[in-house]
Amino acid sequence: MNLIRPKLPAAEALRELFEAVRAHSLELAAPLSAEDQCIQSMPDASPTKWHLAHTTWFFETVLLQPHASGYQAFDPRFHYLFNSYYEALGPRHPRPQRGLLTRPSLDEVHAYRRHVDRAVLALLAHAGEADWATIEPILTLGLHHEQQHQELILTDILHALWCNPLLPAYRAPGGPGLRLASSPPPLNWLARPGGVAEVGHVQGGFAFDNEMPRHQVLLRPHAIADRLVNCGEFAQFVADGGYQRPELWLSDGWAAVQAQGWRAPAYWLAADDPRLAHEGVPGGWQVFGLHGVRPLEPEAPVAQLSFFEAAAYAEWAGARLPTEFEWEAAHDAPDITQMSGQVWQWTRSSYDPYPGFRPLAGVAAEYNGKFMVGQLVLRGGSVATPPGHTRPSYRNFFPPAARWQFSGLRLAKDL
Amino acid sequence: MNLIRPKLPAAEALRELFEAVRAHSLELAAPLSAEDQCIQSMPDASPTKWHLAHTTWFFETVLLQPHASGYQAFDPRFHYLFNSYYEALGPRHPRPQRGLLTRPSLDEVHAYRRHVDRAVLALLAHAGEADWATIEPILTLGLHHEQQHQELILTDILHALWCNPLLPAYRAPGGPGLRLASSPPPLNWLARPGGVAEVGHVQGGFAFDNEMPRHQVLLRPHAIADRLVNCGEFAQFVADGGYQRPELWLSDGWAAVQAQGWRAPAYWLAADDPRLAHEGVPGGWQVFGLHGVRPLEPEAPVAQLSFFEAAAYAEWAGARLPTEFEWEAAHDAPDITQMSGQVWQWTRSSYDPYPGFRPLAGVAAEYNGKFMVGQLVLRGGSVATPPGHTRPSYRNFFPPAARWQFSGLRLAKDL
Amino acid sequence: MNLIRPKLPAAEALRELFEAVRAHSLELAAPLSAEDQCIQSMPDASPTKWHLAHTTWFFETVLLQPHASGYQAFDPRFHYLFNSYYEALGPRHPRPQRGLLTRPSLDEVHAYRRHVDRAVLALLAHAGEADWATIEPILTLGLHHEQQHQELILTDILHALWCNPLLPAYRAPGGPGLRLASSPPPLNWLARPGGVAEVGHVQGGFAFDNEMPRHQVLLRPHAIADRLVNCGEFAQFVADGGYQRPELWLSDGWAAVQAQGWRAPAYWLAADDPRLAHEGVPGGWQVFGLHGVRPLEPEAPVAQLSFFEAAAYAEWAGARLPTEFEWEAAHDAPDITQMSGQVWQWTRSSYDPYPGFRPLAGVAAEYNGKFMVGQLVLRGGSVATPPGHTRPSYRNFFPPAARWQFSGLRLAKDL
Amino acid sequence: MNLIRPKLPAAEALRELFEAVRAHSLELAAPLSAEDQCIQSMPDASPTKWHLAHTTWFFETVLLQPHASGYQAFDPRFHYLFNSYYEALGPRHPRPQRGLLTRPSLDEVHAYRRHVDRAVLALLAHAGEADWATIEPILTLGLHHEQQHQELILTDILHALWCNPLLPAYRAPGGPGLRLASSPPPLNWLARPGGVAEVGHVQGGFAFDNEMPRHQVLLRPHAIADRLVNCGEFAQFVADGGYQRPELWLSDGWAAVQAQGWRAPAYWLAADDPRLAHEGVPGGWQVFGLHGVRPLEPEAPVAQLSFFEAAAYAEWAGARLPTEFEWEAAHDAPDITQMSGQVWQWTRSSYDPYPGFRPLAGVAAEYNGKFMVGQLVLRGGSVATPPGHTRPSYRNFFPPAARWQFSGLRLAKDL
Repeated sequence: MNLIRPKLPAAEALRELFEAVRAHSLELAAPLSAEDQCIQSMPDASPTKWHLAHTTWFFETVLLQPHASGYQAFDPRFHYLFNSYYEALGPRHPRPQRGLLTRPSLDEVHAYRRHVDRAVLALLAHAGEADWATIEPILTLGLHHEQQHQELILTDILHALWCNPLLPAYRAPGGPGLRLASSPPPLNWLARPGGVAEVGHVQGGFAFDNEMPRHQVLLRPHAIADRLVNCGEFAQFVADGGYQRPELWLSDGWAAVQAQGWRAPAYWLAADDPRLAHEGVPGGWQVFGLHGVRPLEPEAPVAQLSFFEAAAYAEWAGARLPTEFEWEAAHDAPDITQMSGQVWQWTRSSYDPYPGFRPLAGVAAEYNGKFMVGQLVLRGGSVATPPGHTRPSYRNFFPPAARWQFSGLRLAKDL
Repeated sequence: MNLIRPKLPAAEALRELFEAVRAHSLELAAPLSAEDQCIQSMPDASPTKWHLAHTTWFFETVLLQPHASGYQAFDPRFHYLFNSYYEALGPRHPRPQRGLLTRPSLDEVHAYRRHVDRAVLALLAHAGEADWATIEPILTLGLHHEQQHQELILTDILHALWCNPLLPAYRAPGGPGLRLASSPPPLNWLARPGGVAEVGHVQGGFAFDNEMPRHQVLLRPHAIADRLVNCGEFAQFVADGGYQRPELWLSDGWAAVQAQGWRAPAYWLAADDPRLAHEGVPGGWQVFGLHGVRPLEPEAPVAQLSFFEAAAYAEWAGARLPTEFEWEAAHDAPDITQMSGQVWQWTRSSYDPYPGFRPLAGVAAEYNGKFMVGQLVLRGGSVATPPGHTRPSYRNFFPPAARWQFSGLRLAKDL
Repeated sequence: MNLIRPKLPAAEALRELFEAVRAHSLELAAPLSAEDQCIQSMPDASPTKWHLAHTTWFFETVLLQPHASGYQAFDPRFHYLFNSYYEALGPRHPRPQRGLLTRPSLDEVHAYRRHVDRAVLALLAHAGEADWATIEPILTLGLHHEQQHQELILTDILHALWCNPLLPAYRAPGGPGLRLASSPPPLNWLARPGGVAEVGHVQGGFAFDNEMPRHQVLLRPHAIADRLVNCGEFAQFVADGGYQRPELWLSDGWAAVQAQGWRAPAYWLAADDPRLAHEGVPGGWQVFGLHGVRPLEPEAPVAQLSFFEAAAYAEWAGARLPTEFEWEAAHDAPDITQMSGQVWQWTRSSYDPYPGFRPLAGVAAEYNGKFMVGQLVLRGGSVATPPGHTRPSYRNFFPPAARWQFSGLRLAKDL
Repeated sequence: MNLIRPKLPAAEALRELFEAVRAHSLELAAPLSAEDQCIQSMPDASPTKWHLAHTTWFFETVLLQPHASGYQAFDPRFHYLFNSYYEALGPRHPRPQRGLLTRPSLDEVHAYRRHVDRAVLALLAHAGEADWATIEPILTLGLHHEQQHQELILTDILHALWCNPLLPAYRAPGGPGLRLASSPPPLNWLARPGGVAEVGHVQGGFAFDNEMPRHQVLLRPHAIADRLVNCGEFAQFVADGGYQRPELWLSDGWAAVQAQGWRAPAYWLAADDPRLAHEGVPGGWQVFGLHGVRPLEPEAPVAQLSFFEAAAYAEWAGARLPTEFEWEAAHDAPDITQMSGQVWQWTRSSYDPYPGFRPLAGVAAEYNGKFMVGQLVLRGGSVATPPGHTRPSYRNFFPPAARWQFSGLRLAKDL
């Protein structure tokens, strides 16, 4: 399901890609009942069904309505229901109430997807060369947009299942995929020289506006860990009183620890957790994930961390988080591992615009730029990220207290 | 589906009643999808599926576990999931998170109901005379309990559907039942003498503990309206600025008007409401109900009122609400109409214990008594109340700001 | 400082009374600095300075502006600043922000009081007989109003001082007055017959509208305690786990215990309280009061209780709270003690209107009636109540969670 | 009152400086009554009296207790009351309740200051050379700390006075100082070359840890405005619907506009504001400041802006905010004006640690570093900043919604 990005994608290649991406969303939803797909467990998360509809709405609104002559909306009321945050497109259903939309039913959302898919494919089939230049970038943006929501389908349903005292598994424990790999022991420090580094998207292929323009930055000599911090290491931080020692925490982080009662990463269960009473589990930490509750695997990367927890761990370890540019510059370093496909890696960089940043034109202007305050950059990509979706220049971002993502950390230190 | 209350109900009659009540809950849920039955639109309302499971849990916990030897719980974890508010039974799933229980699935809840039904019927079939004295009152309580939740199934799903901008109907507009009848014009005042009145449950037949003991009260001469206030009359209050005139409101009511932005009863839609844009409706108020959006019917009783709105209307009309005892004493007055089966009628009586009140024994001690503060009494019964469920002495109660019930008013005045 | 209420008070008597009441407010404020008098420790409490100004505003607004020809307002902006809750008088300074009014200064508020006092005395001096009939009831209402605020001056500043970790005393520990008396041991039950009782204000003398009309009620036989519950008894309830046993509590009360972390009455300090670290106190409970921190006096009436705590104690003691009518009927019972002057006594009566209740005319219509929902009646009067202010028919009222008043309880039980 | 920073400050010079800084705090408080100095108008602001005590506590805790042998604390309970946010020093009085501390009285706080001043001067007088190396940096830090609170004394009391409907002036309108100067018309763009720039504190003299280490950054060619944005320009933004156009705002900024009802900078009053009703003001905007309400001065720098408003204005103006490094690099540019002494200038830089940042040792480790997330950098210095307190490398920081500071903006743009 890798996104192929030929320099000049033929209509045929794009059509195949479109069909593959669209099908993958449904595959991700397949293990879930209609009830599962309907609920919203917190304002930050959205129902699966909403993701399926919203990604469809994006194609309908940004591609079909302006560019497919004679296109008939599946249901004009969906324009209001499935807009996420585009102010330019008018009022929309309030985000915290997405879980109340039992109607349209899941079946109707499936029909909505088919309706839009047919119209997109028809548009592709009949596009002349002049249309192509317009259509191709929008369609490509829509596919990358849908891939972002594919990750959210997983992280959001995981949060919803976590809120159920029965702790149901998204996938059968013995089933395929979506497990974190082992981190290779031991951790080694890779020395990195300072100097000028080029960062940001290299011309060619798709990238989001927030990765551009490519530009130079100055780095100082430093070292970066060759792998991610793993659960065994993080368990030592917990055992060492990490969550009780304010001196390790940023001020807002310590406030979050106290206000939210954090004692461990988001989905860790202590052995005496009442939700485990019917399980007959052995002692020690249990970790809830897409395959349900399983004993903590010491060598698996730690995940479901907020930035605050990542930064506190780094402080405890006598290190720090890398900046996003240190991370990017180290991307192709020899001997570095686990740079993507495991967990997103919190960096010590606020999500600021690059020098010379210009948002996309039109509706997509609201895609990234308007969120560039109060968030931190994560780099890499996770086990939940569709393969091929990310790049070394890819900038993910979340508020510092967010902990429902597959988000962990890699250490760095000054030399 | 009327609850038959023979003085000595035979096992057979009780069995039939049990089956009828249990079946009725499923009939009420039948028009709803699994998605509809899963969600919770506010902390005060519960999902349909939760009501189906909780009423089953009640029989399991209060009847089967103590009294059916060898009973095997369907799933011991349901003890935690479906306890509503019984502190004596230990911790329970938090009320505001009932809508997150996509598991157990609706099918599993149906299986749970069948499991418990079979066990109850087996218990009934084999009960000796000694058992009977124990079992019969618990089973009867459980049936009245389930009937109370049948009403909530309707009022809670109506609120959930109201939260959906598509305003879907619970029942097809042309379908049977659940409509409010016309109030007979004009309103007549019935003069009522003062003096001693007997109130509370008359010995014989089932009643809740809060209706007892029967006792005497002193009434002053007064008049009571022979019918309910209707929508046409309430629309005049709205048009006369009723929601903008603080002098008509209790202090907490006026605060609620301003904080919640109340402008009309809960489910009234003004002609320019954006949710009506796709409907092609004529001018004037539209009212959302179990049959969907329909033009306001001036002669239908007004419903979905808070106590605050009922009291403000009465003030505007130069009248007042009856006390619960005036209402009860007038129950059999000649020429009085609409005393039940339309809307619950707010009274000007706080929900205080009767003199000599004693709560039920055991778990059921928490049934009514612990809620006797901060609520107002409603009398009568609504279109959503299962026929036969109420009595003239029946005391319903809600906080004064609650407006998602079929709750309206009847006027009274001093003479 | 007793309010003399002759049948036909001469202007002279009323003048003396006016001067005495007005002077008493300043005497209550005298131990407090300008800083003390400025702050507001919670939205329910008001600054001393605000009380001094608001009671003055009441005379200015209700008496002088309509009835003193040529009266010049001290500062027209005070009309906005010092209105409490009278909607008919237009917008007003938000209640939670009363503590931000450093200006007018305390000195200016004193000048405001003198300005209004002079105008009232001039009005009295020159009132003809026709004026008198108008002026006298308003002036008398204003005096009773000011007395109510005199009690709040004490309870509100006590809360404010309690919020200060230094726990400063309002009065020197050895100084005069404002201490609770001992409750005479042991507690005796006074049997009370049932039957018709007359309740409400007897014609003649001042009373608030909420005490009227006088009417008959039916009581059942019961017993009432001859004295208040004292601190020693309440400490046994605490020691017996009273605050950890949900079965003793009303549902909303138990929620308050958990949400607020209640463990004892409002101003009780456990021996290990860090605020006592610099005090060198002996073991056992300490109680904060107007004279500062003092060891719990077992025979003093318990105070600073919410209704929820009073009701839970009564449940624990195998008794109940009296209704407000049982209390009123017992007022003159032989051998009954501590009916006023110690603590307000929570009753098991919601604050509902009396049959035939009519609010006062004009602005004073908002005085009592609009608060008649969601509150409980307290009877008696406290050590902080100005002597002579209350009557047997006097109805005080607070929400059930309020615990910053001198509020305690007397037990009753069914016979 | 300029802080002299000789390379080796003699004890004498430091003593003079100490006395001058300490005296200046009292001068700032002098126009305020004890009531004014006691209140807290929001959790982010602190009472004047608290600032006076906390700065004293800092010297007592960080300097005297560890380094002045035999020092007797003025009152050991102040350790709890006047700690601001130092977790290492144990629990402390909750920030939102600082306004409840009527005790200690203002007079006692003055006595506390004298007590500590005497002890510091005695320490200075008797310090040997070895002591000096320890004492001097701590004392210097304490002076800079007190200067920061001097600015807060002004901004916090201005907010408190703003909350008073009487809108009292801190200083007489005709009195000296604390007015913003005119911005020279017209605005000119200064072209700035790209390339390597050195930023951060140059060795020598005092600086905070967050200004270090000095390091190189790469800048792109850009232009920066030669003066601040003024009120007349900002009024055009308002008139052009700036507060109604979501496309100009960051997402969190637009949410703040709607949630807080922002329509103009924080202390602007529209001509029809009811608070102006008694003032007889002419039409047009009025602006509340330290000298009270005055007509908007079009050429005065706009102040009391949040970052969100500054960024929206820049977007509207077709420009952007400078980064903190562009600002610092332009500090000595020819023809640039208003770089300090008027308003703090929001930059488009999140408050991140400099590469190689190390916090101060000991208690002061909590001074800056733990706040390095979720805030934006402001540069320059304001009319409320003590003269000489800032440097070109000085980094002030506030959350993006903060608008009670003298905070404005200077434009920049890409070339």
